[in-house]
Amino acid sequence: MGYDKTDELAINTIRLLAVDATFAANSGHPGAPMGLAPAAHVLFNKFMTFNPKNPDWVNRDRFVLSNGHGCMLQYALLHLFGYALSLDDIKHFRQVDSITPGHPEAHDTPGIEVTTGPLGQGFANAVGLAIAQAHTGAVFNKEGFPIITNHTYTFFGDGCAMEGVASEAASMAGHLQLGNLIAIYDDNHISIDGDTACAFTEDVLKRFEAYGWHTQHVVDGNTDLEGIEEAIEKAKEVTDKPSVIKLTTTIGFGSLLEGTGGVHGNALKEDDIKQLKEKFGFDSSKTFVVPQEVYDLYGKHAAEGAAAEQEWNKLFEKYGEKYSEEHKDLKRRLAGKLPEGWQKCLPTYTTKDPAIASRKLSETVLEKIHEVLPELLSGSADLTGSNNTRWKKAVDFQPPNTKLGDWSGRYIRYGVREHAMGAAMNGLSAYGTVIPASGTFLNFVSYAAGAVRLSSLSHQRVIWVATHDSIGLGEDGPTHQPIETLAHFRALPNMMVWRPADGNETSAAYYMALTSRETPSILALTRQNLPQLEGSTIEGAIKGGYIALDNKEADVTLVSTGSEVSICLEAVDTLKEKHNLKARVVSMPCVEVFDAQSKEYRLSVIPDGIPTMSVEVMSTLGWEKYSHEQFGLNRFGASGPYKDVYKKFEFTPEGIAKRAALTVDFYKDVKPLRSPINRAFQQLI
Amino acid sequence: MGYDKTDELAINTIRLLAVDATFAANSGHPGAPMGLAPAAHVLFNKFMTFNPKNPDWVNRDRFVLSNGHGCMLQYALLHLFGYALSLDDIKHFRQVDSITPGHPEAHDTPGIEVTTGPLGQGFANAVGLAIAQAHTGAVFNKEGFPIITNHTYTFFGDGCAMEGVASEAASMAGHLQLGNLIAIYDDNHISIDGDTACAFTEDVLKRFEAYGWHTQHVVDGNTDLEGIEEAIEKAKEVTDKPSVIKLTTTIGFGSLLEGTGGVHGNALKEDDIKQLKEKFGFDSSKTFVVPQEVYDLYGKHAAEGAAAEQEWNKLFEKYGEKYSEEHKDLKRRLAGKLPEGWQKCLPTYTTKDPAIASRKLSETVLEKIHEVLPELLSGSADLTGSNNTRWKKAVDFQPPNTKLGDWSGRYIRYGVREHAMGAAMNGLSAYGTVIPASGTFLNFVSYAAGAVRLSSLSHQRVIWVATHDSIGLGEDGPTHQPIETLAHFRALPNMMVWRPADGNETSAAYYMALTSRETPSILALTRQNLPQLEGSTIEGAIKGGYIALDNKEADVTLVSTGSEVSICLEAVDTLKEKHNLKARVVSMPCVEVFDAQSKEYRLSVIPDGIPTMSVEVMSTLGWEKYSHEQFGLNRFGASGPYKDVYKKFEFTPEGIAKRAALTVDFYKDVKPLRSPINRAFQQLI
Ligand SMILES: [Ca+2]
Ligand SMILES: [Ca+2]
Repeated sequence: MGYDKTDELAINTIRLLAVDATFAANSGHPGAPMGLAPAAHVLFNKFMTFNPKNPDWVNRDRFVLSNGHGCMLQYALLHLFGYALSLDDIKHFRQVDSITPGHPEAHDTPGIEVTTGPLGQGFANAVGLAIAQAHTGAVFNKEGFPIITNHTYTFFGDGCAMEGVASEAASMAGHLQLGNLIAIYDDNHISIDGDTACAFTEDVLKRFEAYGWHTQHVVDGNTDLEGIEEAIEKAKEVTDKPSVIKLTTTIGFGSLLEGTGGVHGNALKEDDIKQLKEKFGFDSSKTFVVPQEVYDLYGKHAAEGAAAEQEWNKLFEKYGEKYSEEHKDLKRRLAGKLPEGWQKCLPTYTTKDPAIASRKLSETVLEKIHEVLPELLSGSADLTGSNNTRWKKAVDFQPPNTKLGDWSGRYIRYGVREHAMGAAMNGLSAYGTVIPASGTFLNFVSYAAGAVRLSSLSHQRVIWVATHDSIGLGEDGPTHQPIETLAHFRALPNMMVWRPADGNETSAAYYMALTSRETPSILALTRQNLPQLEGSTIEGAIKGGYIALDNKEADVTLVSTGSEVSICLEAVDTLKEKHNLKARVVSMPCVEVFDAQSKEYRLSVIPDGIPTMSVEVMSTLGWEKYSHEQFGLNRFGASGPYKDVYKKFEFTPEGIAKRAALTVDFYKDVKPLRSPINRAFQQLI
Repeated sequence: MGYDKTDELAINTIRLLAVDATFAANSGHPGAPMGLAPAAHVLFNKFMTFNPKNPDWVNRDRFVLSNGHGCMLQYALLHLFGYALSLDDIKHFRQVDSITPGHPEAHDTPGIEVTTGPLGQGFANAVGLAIAQAHTGAVFNKEGFPIITNHTYTFFGDGCAMEGVASEAASMAGHLQLGNLIAIYDDNHISIDGDTACAFTEDVLKRFEAYGWHTQHVVDGNTDLEGIEEAIEKAKEVTDKPSVIKLTTTIGFGSLLEGTGGVHGNALKEDDIKQLKEKFGFDSSKTFVVPQEVYDLYGKHAAEGAAAEQEWNKLFEKYGEKYSEEHKDLKRRLAGKLPEGWQKCLPTYTTKDPAIASRKLSETVLEKIHEVLPELLSGSADLTGSNNTRWKKAVDFQPPNTKLGDWSGRYIRYGVREHAMGAAMNGLSAYGTVIPASGTFLNFVSYAAGAVRLSSLSHQRVIWVATHDSIGLGEDGPTHQPIETLAHFRALPNMMVWRPADGNETSAAYYMALTSRETPSILALTRQNLPQLEGSTIEGAIKGGYIALDNKEADVTLVSTGSEVSICLEAVDTLKEKHNLKARVVSMPCVEVFDAQSKEYRLSVIPDGIPTMSVEVMSTLGWEKYSHEQFGLNRFGASGPYKDVYKKFEFTPEGIAKRAALTVDFYKDVKPLRSPINRAFQQLI
């Protein structure tokens, strides 16, 4: 313990960097950094172990700023501790192409663990990071070799505390007894609407107690550095529960408007900055000032972190001598490589194999690959038996004292908490040693839309096993039948939406999902059985779209996905018999991957000269990109046995053939009839 | 008090109807109805006032089955009490075109208040219904005229309790001190994954206490009818807090598999049903049996409800004599009519008016119409100052003892709880006396996707004031800039997505949102200023799309929305100057409303013969339906001043003109060049 002038100077330097940067940008949030600088100072300088020269060191302590709008706090710290973030970068806060965007983005900025800003997400990411640590430690630590021991720290504000995703994650963390997780709640009584008295009057600590957390309150978060240190120290001592520290702070501490909403989301005024700098003993005529003592103080801690990594490297080398398999495995994981030849375990099928629901096909994949891919962590939001996400010998990830599993377990019971599951998966993926794949109904991936979006934005390899993917789920009815869902996620950049038609395509979907290190995937899987298709192969399907049935003299191309591909293949016969028309069929399990193929290939699949009609039992939105006409369902579904529902909406060989014939007729006079693959100009991507 | 054999008989009748119906459907959830039948019996027969012959009576008690998968409980009750739901309807449980779908749907089935099933939603709907009651009572009740006095009751299970949307709603209800809300938590220790010990071990009552709820526990929910009655009685006595009653029950009570996951989501086996019927004293050879005593018992209560309504009608008539204005107003609201001539208050603009952000234009609409539309309830998820949702004289809806407002207030502080806000709005709308319109950033409407979907499915007139609608929000960056959001909600059936280009279009958007009784709306509004357009009128914009700039000799049509329309108009000049091409411009503020126009009209807007290019600064997905080529942003945005961001992505007159010229060139050889409005066949809607 013991804090002196230099600590104060460091804290005020952080505050003023936030003030100067938001003033220069005329935009941003100075209030939270000013209020949280003391806690950040104590946490980063006294507790956290990290090496700014290697932000990827696996055993570093993790820090998540869940109230991401306060990112100038984080940028200031990263700069001061010596990460590759210059003072110039801070001067370009919130400018196009800077590494200091308006909210922290993990893939842009060294030292940012996860992308935050959308409230509540970071808190739930932290739970995922803590799960990953507990699991990785349990798998790799050995007597005398504490390889994976890091803590996860997160700051969160009133906004995060109000968000459902954080509530779900907190309940989950409490159940999981995540003793390695320490959350600091910035209790500043202010949110954008002003005093939290207007909307948020619950007892937050009592709520966390109810979840099973260890709770503390630091009454003076502005100046009581010893109190903050003691609380974090105590939180670290509690190893069987996550800890939350309610830290009462003054938002915009030092500003003329401190403690009001006026400092939340607006730069301070010039005269306010002047008095603030003078109050803090800074030269008010200068901006972006960092006293050398502050660089020195933080540089010392950074050097300790670098030394700690060196020590760790030695330990890890010794570990390798004694536990060469584990050593190799962890090194491989950290390099982001999958085990050599793992893909040979992916099952393949022929038409002799029986019709099987793709959710079951997915289960078979998991069954076949889980041994060769030890980094794969499965789970479900309370739909294990419906999502088929659990391999037979799976052990639950559970606190050992529950007798329901242990920390090395690879199956996570997320509970009915889809949003927290999605956000926790982002944290799991960001940790760097595991690949999360979790299940819910496709319709309820939408509950997690906020987290899914951040998987895409921050390049997390997260896999959604999204079963019950259409009206084909039948009796549960319109409340559970996706219509808009695939269009939604196809419109999301850097997301692969897979809707496999059979066993080979399901294997292909997993192959691509697992090997795409920077892209999340949603696998839309059926409840109903699907026949194994004649033309399907993994090699074809990993191109995103391929010819499932060719015919050089075809009058029309039918392009389809998932459960409708086999109906299209039947419709080919109907078209011949009833309409004397020839058709070819394209299976398009993933439009995003298809888009990435060469134009030549794409034109070979969806050629010029004949019209293309898409067939998918949900919104047609977006299919115009790949077809001239679209057969889909631009209304809600119906409750009933799935065959009746398909019939009601004419998703039958006859219903398809009828529309295909109309399509052929409609386009017969258009010359030249170009494939929709041909475009006048390239899209920005 | 006092319960006898007939009560037991009624309870077992409910249980067996659920058992028989799920067996007949070979699908559905018998367990929850069997466990909850006692509580439902006590609640419906002893407490709830309703008239099955008039399910729309405004002062009826509301009941919401948040664990909607247990809907056979509700269908059984509705039938037994004499709603227009026959035994035959129950026999057609989960069949196509029945009024007994797999989850309860409000617009399909008389007596169902809100559409539930997606977990957590119903609970939050109930909070909305309770807010609506408190508000409507405060507005209309007078000394001696307790016109609006109903309670809202909801049942919810472990699944709902785990969902973030319910957590948010519970925190909100606690803050709002909703004494008219009574929630019964079905504590049966079972969710789909089995014993809740695997994922859900928090102390639920303690959590609700932390939110500010009154809590009770009924230990034996299976047989202790007196205990249930006492608890509900006490809950009613507490008028300054919402009440939750934890009811420990046995899922599938009476089944050989009672208390296990086996009865949750599967029909009972034949031998199990046999023993169950024998145990309950029913003839095991018969199905769908209702003893006459049960009809009589419930018929008596239904008759009391009908009498209560008659009494109320008399009271309301007398009320009309004394308070004719209020009487007229409430009658009008209940008839679903807006005040005569209200639309005259909508502001209109000419090009002489200054450029204004559409979020500000929206504020002006609210300012101008709030007096003439007393049923309009505004609010925001903690972004009041950014969403501009509050008219100057607005009073907050707050418990009077907070001194921050009162129950008659029309501005709701939802806190940072987008999902609960969406679900509460569904409840507000379902109550029948108010129209909710609430704000958040467009990007965070996605947090509420689960609720938004149900607004559409259940035909609720809910209005989202969704500001900061694109990369035009600038500095906040990619975490806050919608790309996929409009595509998502355009793919959702029965949803109007509005993106107005100026003041007249903003007024048009409100006109349509407010007059569409069965359709929710999302108004996507800018942060940045927009000029008032030459060609814009309310009359044009309410058609969803119209010609903003015509040119009979045009080479190309530019179709655009919102902030890009004025840039397209500038691009017309650039096209002329740099490319010697003539262009016409279509403003398309709402594609769904445009789709509803005559084909003739649509073809006049997007004509044959020349190519059309769409321009919108987000995902192009779906624009192929209205254009030959699309200029959009199929990647994430960037953090920076918005003009820099627009420039980076070439959303400038030059960037548009360049692509328009390429489009003209690309299509010059295609004959005939049809408008994309022409289709080979009609979509199913
Ligand atoms: Ca705060
Ligand atoms: Ca339960």
